[in-house]
Amino acid sequence: MHELFATRASRMKASEIRELLKLLDQPGIISFAGGIPDPELFPADGFSEAFQAALGPEQQAQALQYSVSEGYVPLREWLVGHMREIGVECGLDNILITSGSQQALDYLGKLYLSPGDTALVGWPTYLGALSAFNAYEPRFDRLSINGNRGAAEYKAAAGAGAVKFAYLSPDFANPTGETVDLRGREALLDLADDLNCALIEDGAYQALRYDGDAIPPILALELARKGSIEDCRTIYCGSFSKTLSPGLRVGWVVAPKPVISQLVLMKQAADLHSATINQMAIDQVARACFDTHIPMVRRAYSARRDAMLQALQEHMPEGVQWTKPEGGMFIWVTLPVGMDGADLLASALETVKIAFVPGKAFFPDGTGANTIRLSFSNSDEDAIREGVRRLGEVLRG
Amino acid sequence: MHELFATRASRMKASEIRELLKLLDQPGIISFAGGIPDPELFPADGFSEAFQAALGPEQQAQALQYSVSEGYVPLREWLVGHMREIGVECGLDNILITSGSQQALDYLGKLYLSPGDTALVGWPTYLGALSAFNAYEPRFDRLSINGNRGAAEYKAAAGAGAVKFAYLSPDFANPTGETVDLRGREALLDLADDLNCALIEDGAYQALRYDGDAIPPILALELARKGSIEDCRTIYCGSFSKTLSPGLRVGWVVAPKPVISQLVLMKQAADLHSATINQMAIDQVARACFDTHIPMVRRAYSARRDAMLQALQEHMPEGVQWTKPEGGMFIWVTLPVGMDGADLLASALETVKIAFVPGKAFFPDGTGANTIRLSFSNSDEDAIREGVRRLGEVLRG
Repeated sequence: MHELFATRASRMKASEIRELLKLLDQPGIISFAGGIPDPELFPADGFSEAFQAALGPEQQAQALQYSVSEGYVPLREWLVGHMREIGVECGLDNILITSGSQQALDYLGKLYLSPGDTALVGWPTYLGALSAFNAYEPRFDRLSINGNRGAAEYKAAAGAGAVKFAYLSPDFANPTGETVDLRGREALLDLADDLNCALIEDGAYQALRYDGDAIPPILALELARKGSIEDCRTIYCGSFSKTLSPGLRVGWVVAPKPVISQLVLMKQAADLHSATINQMAIDQVARACFDTHIPMVRRAYSARRDAMLQALQEHMPEGVQWTKPEGGMFIWVTLPVGMDGADLLASALETVKIAFVPGKAFFPDGTGANTIRLSFSNSDEDAIREGVRRLGEVLRG
Repeated sequence: MHELFATRASRMKASEIRELLKLLDQPGIISFAGGIPDPELFPADGFSEAFQAALGPEQQAQALQYSVSEGYVPLREWLVGHMREIGVECGLDNILITSGSQQALDYLGKLYLSPGDTALVGWPTYLGALSAFNAYEPRFDRLSINGNRGAAEYKAAAGAGAVKFAYLSPDFANPTGETVDLRGREALLDLADDLNCALIEDGAYQALRYDGDAIPPILALELARKGSIEDCRTIYCGSFSKTLSPGLRVGWVVAPKPVISQLVLMKQAADLHSATINQMAIDQVARACFDTHIPMVRRAYSARRDAMLQALQEHMPEGVQWTKPEGGMFIWVTLPVGMDGADLLASALETVKIAFVPGKAFFPDGTGANTIRLSFSNSDEDAIREGVRRLGEVLRG
């Protein structure tokens, strides 16, 4: 019944990353592929207690029942406090709980994009954002940060479709690991005002800073300019996936009330609400240990990042370059021009059992063949050193 | 930033049912409004054990981690057996786990509907289906079951847009409680073949039959005609929400492989996967007690249905008609022409503290003002008798 599918279906293709994840079970492979947290770092005991409490006599009826689309109120209250800690004053009605921040990206695409509208994204950018937005058939244009493209140029390129939003992950972005500095963030706010478009700030890695000074979220900077979240155009997407657990699928969106109201209607229509019990468990675990758990996670990943940076220094041949992220899970490697990351993966898998993600998929225009993404989050330091050593071997040929 | 929203946003309006649900916490109200299961009937102890097992040392890493978009394999294996029991032979690759069957409706709308395409639905039909499909800007046309409209008439009415699918819940439908008989099901298959469209079978209430003979799912009837699920155009949506727990948000879709593959891509892009631990818990509870738990649920709801039917007989004034459902959660009441269900709700809430859902919202064309939906699932027999008695009072004026 392919001929009955809507046109959007033709833009939704299999993700290389997800297909790759299926390879990871093979014995002996050292994988720098998936951007997945280390399960050893999940607060499993805390979750065990939290699920037991939710299923105790007092809460079980609520935990297993339908709940409101907006999300579990105590968790939204905790998030009001959490957002305040990172510089964002907002109220309960500015927060919607989503099934991971991936769902927030889907809903935001659904809310803003008509076919032919323009979404500004990094070149490269998070592949999952491209997939989520693609369902709404936008045109992608390259968001230049600290760059030389002005609003007029973006508008002219957009043609008949409007520029609806710019999307970026300003802290330790997937896939590059790079951070947008204060000046870059301010410039983005100017651009969004000039373009009269929304700004989607993906804070998925925001809590995972290992060194350097914290930079306020873009939404915090806009709040400082405009005084009230109701006057802001930045929409912040947060996630517990990299800090507490991705498997529970709990994330959140912070936005002006009219945006949240419309997203609530979309969520009602799309899946009613995120799982009640998971929101209750995340709430309990966040209250019990977010502040003590996250520093522990940071220490672990920081050591892995250091090990990978050192190993790259040691084993990469001349002509290979890489980023030095201050946080997150990824290092972005640029190979000499003419080399192909996908070819390298094929030979690395076959000859030395190393997996990573070829960079091309992160570029909406199909460039970036000579880039690869390495994740350091789910391998211990010894595996990282050994893996990078082997990668160097393959690169030397 | 309203002016930036896509055109689809204007079609997504607040659901009367969901707004009503917010009233239910008021003390003293007897509510026949929400189609929500009785939390006393959730297998809470089974879930408590299942979540503990999932968070034990052997499974916790998996339970809290990302997982594949297709869904948890053991649960899909259980569902292969469950579908076989209700007459549908299919394989693992014919099943996708969704976050409730509501999500399946959203994804199917997304997969099939371009703006202006036609979706055939009952008049009335499940409000959540209308909401889910509305995001993709279809035209709705009235699906006539056992009726006198032929393919040519539907096609002519569809104009430039194609008829992409017919949607219905053949067993004890929300909101009417009515069941489509065998002849009606066969006629629908003929119609779908004539129209070359998909047929979405919503099996949300399928397991909740209290009397009368079971009728095979439409998908089972099509399989009997065509021999292989790969040749079928019926897409079956199932749910654990009415049988085990709605709060965990676990449902499933059964369809030919090319449809499932495309839905898997949509799910990857939209929320990556349904919560891992919830799928593991549902799997364990379904294996442990589905076959013993469901008969207990049926007995409880059956007694409530009987109490409501008897009370209606006793207390409704002349000129009021209602359905006699063989299962499910709903009785559909037709008031004398000229009466308005919304007005009745306003006075029933104020004078006798009775809640229900006015029927108009279930009609895509805004008719049905003189209908109301009563749910008997979440009140005990005494409350049902008292509530219907009070409703009779208000109706007599």
